[in-house]
Amino acid sequence: MALAGQFLQERGGSKMAYYRDLREYLGALEAAGRLRRVADAIDKDRELHPLVRWQYRGIDEAERFGFLFEQVVSHGERLGGQVASSVLAANREMYAVALGCDLAEARERWAQAFERHIPPVLVNDGPVKEEVHTGDRLLEHGGLREFPVPFTTNGWEAFPRITAAAVFSKDPDTGVTNAGMYNSIILGPGRANLRTSRHLHMHWDKCRQQGRPLEVAIVVGAPPIVPCVAASDVPYGLPELDVASGFIGEPIPVVRCETVDLAVPATAEVVIEGRIPIDAMDQDGPSGENRGHVMLRGRVHPFEVTGITHRRNPIWHDVIEGFPPTESSTLRSFNCEGRIMALLRSHGIPYVKDVAFHHCGSARHFCALSFQDVGGVRTPNASVWQALFAVMSVDPSWPKIAIAVDDDVDPHDIESVLWAVVDRCQPHRDVKIVQGRASGLDESVAPYEESKEHRPYPTSLVSPQGASIMLVDATRKWSYPPVSLPRKDYMDRGREVWERLGLPKLRPRTPWHGASLGRWPDECAELVRLSESGAEDDAARRLLDKRTSL
Amino acid sequence: MALAGQFLQERGGSKMAYYRDLREYLGALEAAGRLRRVADAIDKDRELHPLVRWQYRGIDEAERFGFLFEQVVSHGERLGGQVASSVLAANREMYAVALGCDLAEARERWAQAFERHIPPVLVNDGPVKEEVHTGDRLLEHGGLREFPVPFTTNGWEAFPRITAAAVFSKDPDTGVTNAGMYNSIILGPGRANLRTSRHLHMHWDKCRQQGRPLEVAIVVGAPPIVPCVAASDVPYGLPELDVASGFIGEPIPVVRCETVDLAVPATAEVVIEGRIPIDAMDQDGPSGENRGHVMLRGRVHPFEVTGITHRRNPIWHDVIEGFPPTESSTLRSFNCEGRIMALLRSHGIPYVKDVAFHHCGSARHFCALSFQDVGGVRTPNASVWQALFAVMSVDPSWPKIAIAVDDDVDPHDIESVLWAVVDRCQPHRDVKIVQGRASGLDESVAPYEESKEHRPYPTSLVSPQGASIMLVDATRKWSYPPVSLPRKDYMDRGREVWERLGLPKLRPRTPWHGASLGRWPDECAELVRLSESGAEDDAARRLLDKRTSL
Repeated sequence: MALAGQFLQERGGSKMAYYRDLREYLGALEAAGRLRRVADAIDKDRELHPLVRWQYRGIDEAERFGFLFEQVVSHGERLGGQVASSVLAANREMYAVALGCDLAEARERWAQAFERHIPPVLVNDGPVKEEVHTGDRLLEHGGLREFPVPFTTNGWEAFPRITAAAVFSKDPDTGVTNAGMYNSIILGPGRANLRTSRHLHMHWDKCRQQGRPLEVAIVVGAPPIVPCVAASDVPYGLPELDVASGFIGEPIPVVRCETVDLAVPATAEVVIEGRIPIDAMDQDGPSGENRGHVMLRGRVHPFEVTGITHRRNPIWHDVIEGFPPTESSTLRSFNCEGRIMALLRSHGIPYVKDVAFHHCGSARHFCALSFQDVGGVRTPNASVWQALFAVMSVDPSWPKIAIAVDDDVDPHDIESVLWAVVDRCQPHRDVKIVQGRASGLDESVAPYEESKEHRPYPTSLVSPQGASIMLVDATRKWSYPPVSLPRKDYMDRGREVWERLGLPKLRPRTPWHGASLGRWPDECAELVRLSESGAEDDAARRLLDKRTSL
Repeated sequence: MALAGQFLQERGGSKMAYYRDLREYLGALEAAGRLRRVADAIDKDRELHPLVRWQYRGIDEAERFGFLFEQVVSHGERLGGQVASSVLAANREMYAVALGCDLAEARERWAQAFERHIPPVLVNDGPVKEEVHTGDRLLEHGGLREFPVPFTTNGWEAFPRITAAAVFSKDPDTGVTNAGMYNSIILGPGRANLRTSRHLHMHWDKCRQQGRPLEVAIVVGAPPIVPCVAASDVPYGLPELDVASGFIGEPIPVVRCETVDLAVPATAEVVIEGRIPIDAMDQDGPSGENRGHVMLRGRVHPFEVTGITHRRNPIWHDVIEGFPPTESSTLRSFNCEGRIMALLRSHGIPYVKDVAFHHCGSARHFCALSFQDVGGVRTPNASVWQALFAVMSVDPSWPKIAIAVDDDVDPHDIESVLWAVVDRCQPHRDVKIVQGRASGLDESVAPYEESKEHRPYPTSLVSPQGASIMLVDATRKWSYPPVSLPRKDYMDRGREVWERLGLPKLRPRTPWHGASLGRWPDECAELVRLSESGAEDDAARRLLDKRTSL
């Protein structure tokens, strides 16, 4: 964050707004102490992902880092290129480095990104054209097998998986480009599949009606802002590159593809151009999904490679996803938080202070919103519900659980959110369960049927009433007595003593001191004032004066 | 844990079952690296609690420790004695040290404690009689003000508070002794109050009918097993000292009090004897409560001191409570978990594997239970509900939220529990909200009324339908595909690489590897087997054979 800023400023004193390529970003990450280079030979099929996954199941979020594997092997043979894994968003601090802003700004930057677009700029050449393989020479270096693409959910998957790609395609009616992060497994030197949904799928549907295949370009290792935006929900018709350029305040340079009518970031590491046929679909290999299970036998698109361009000694970019927390759940969380803030603003609900999407819901299905006073007026209960209903309307399938809390609770701290639920909610009064929701990949909706197949998003309702969402109002409905922690001035003093004694470094959690929540009677405050002034006996006398005879 | 065992064995080679006094326990804690001695002068009224509270709001649970303050001051003057604060249960590991058992055993020990009782043994003398103050000499050393009793919720409280006391009293009909942890503020050298509930309050009610005051003894700094049991819910009529003696496997020595007809642990640090009148009640000073707020203007009992006995240079024992997590929420959690396990066994429900009460619900109001197969048979859905309904019946006011999960989820890991809720529960089908519950200290039930007063437990229903509880079945209702993490053998291999590279120490969270949850088709397994044997192309061919023409 601060370090990223420094790094950017050091680049010649000019106002740099972003990393021009993945390599520059990895340098910033290393300078920030957030990148580990691994010089040992690592087996991309058997060791790479299990190693990186441990940090999501074995160390704290704040400790995590990115990996750069300098020597990758497969079946005992050394491969060309390197692999950068878990470098975008092993935690929220790293994601802010990737965006090139402070962590505190990141969510607001996302909220504004939907309104601030800059088109990319077309340039004639770029590093991604350092090597070009097309036509008869398409497979001269092995085609897709030239690159060190790792296996991901090892033991449940049978093929290397492309995880960090921004997949570019064009709406055949409007010519507007979409770039989304879709998964793909490699099935041969010139053949892969592509598991599409949402916008890419709409492009394909349109092409099918027009009777021609859909052209796509799979972009790996673009400047980090590109995969950050491609991994996010951006409304249909708004090109991700325009959002990404708007985010960084200047147009991203793009070059024309060799074999398809698309333009892609000029500084990307690898671009795989190709076609999706409209006359057939394939069965997907089993694949680890972000809701926490392996998806079986989905239906996916064949992908036929027509061209490959790449930088010399490319760095293969890889993202960790699957059972949360993962890198992809951190990527999603900022975008979902930004979308909700933008949505609630457009509803004219000014009371929402903060929103947090949690890993336990894959950063899409479990969120908490905090509410604040506006102009000294407390959020009306009905406005809390208006906001919760608006949140429910953001999408047919997410979130699944949304909880409203007051602004003395940190919505990012899940234990504090649950404390508020216990403290401030009566379930029969403050919980609402609403049906009519789509199921997405939710396994709890209905038992598996052999005939069921992976459907493009949004899924239809699985029963006449659909899946359900739970909304919880865990705000205070009236004034409460103070939180039972020492008052701020005392905690400040305690912290001074703590630090003087050389005790372990503190990372304060909200709340870390007591504060009045509207009910702190003068009579009680007076007892405390007397005692603090040394008149403890006078305070005792006041209390004893209130004795009741039975 | 291991260290406590070592310590116990070192004591002469004899099979020691418990710490004979607080001092022996503090030695064990220090040997285990869990005690910090503070030699600097610390102000008990302004600094002591804020300092200790920081570890509950500023460092991780696993890092916490106990404090021994060797030099305590008040109003600028040095006081006699020392203060041991946060020494019983700053975290679960320390609580196991206090019990003298392994952490893994602690819950089961509690489940058995309700059936295994040993009466204490009366002895003639003990260290607690080293100094005796009664009659005309009651206040010779300052009475209650002889001891370094800290202020607790600083800035919201006006008096020193006795927090770690086991308060002994007798049922005037049966002569059976109760010992509970009740709070008390000091209002003068010979005067305090006592905020009673439950069993002590029943003794007082009975005395009132018989027209005589209730005799009590406030015991501070007994062997750690005594406050551990006194802080817990033990059914009425079962003496806490019998449970504590049964817990450690031998009778705890007790001595007769000087001025009241009670017997108390002979090795306690301080015993305050006195009477509770039956003709009057006092107003309580504001006091921090475990549900997270300051309780205002409750009605409490006056307490008149008749005798004080104590060890020379006593160690004042103090427990941290208030906004959770606290030491007292850890104390409660083991007891609640043991009670629930004992209760479900008595219902003949064999499927429950583990239960966890979480700090966010003050370790009483939010719990998760995990269910396991029995004899290869999965827990029937109706048995999950039977268990949840049984949990609801343990008490009129706790828990407030109870969640059932499968045994692949760690009920102590709140994020994993919520992941299961998102993954395996449809709210309209799997959530039940039930009214008819008592409110306890729950501020969310109804707005404050000036006329409302603190009522002894259990409170009556606050409305015809009462407060409510939410029960959630977050178990799988049918077979699921594998969890999307690499298979165990891969994660084991990844861990070897992790450790070889010298990366940060791992603390694996459950689940840390993928596992089949009933739906892993042969067809998918075969693809993986082919690929693992090096026949990736054959696997690809099998998948492409399943192409569907559109």
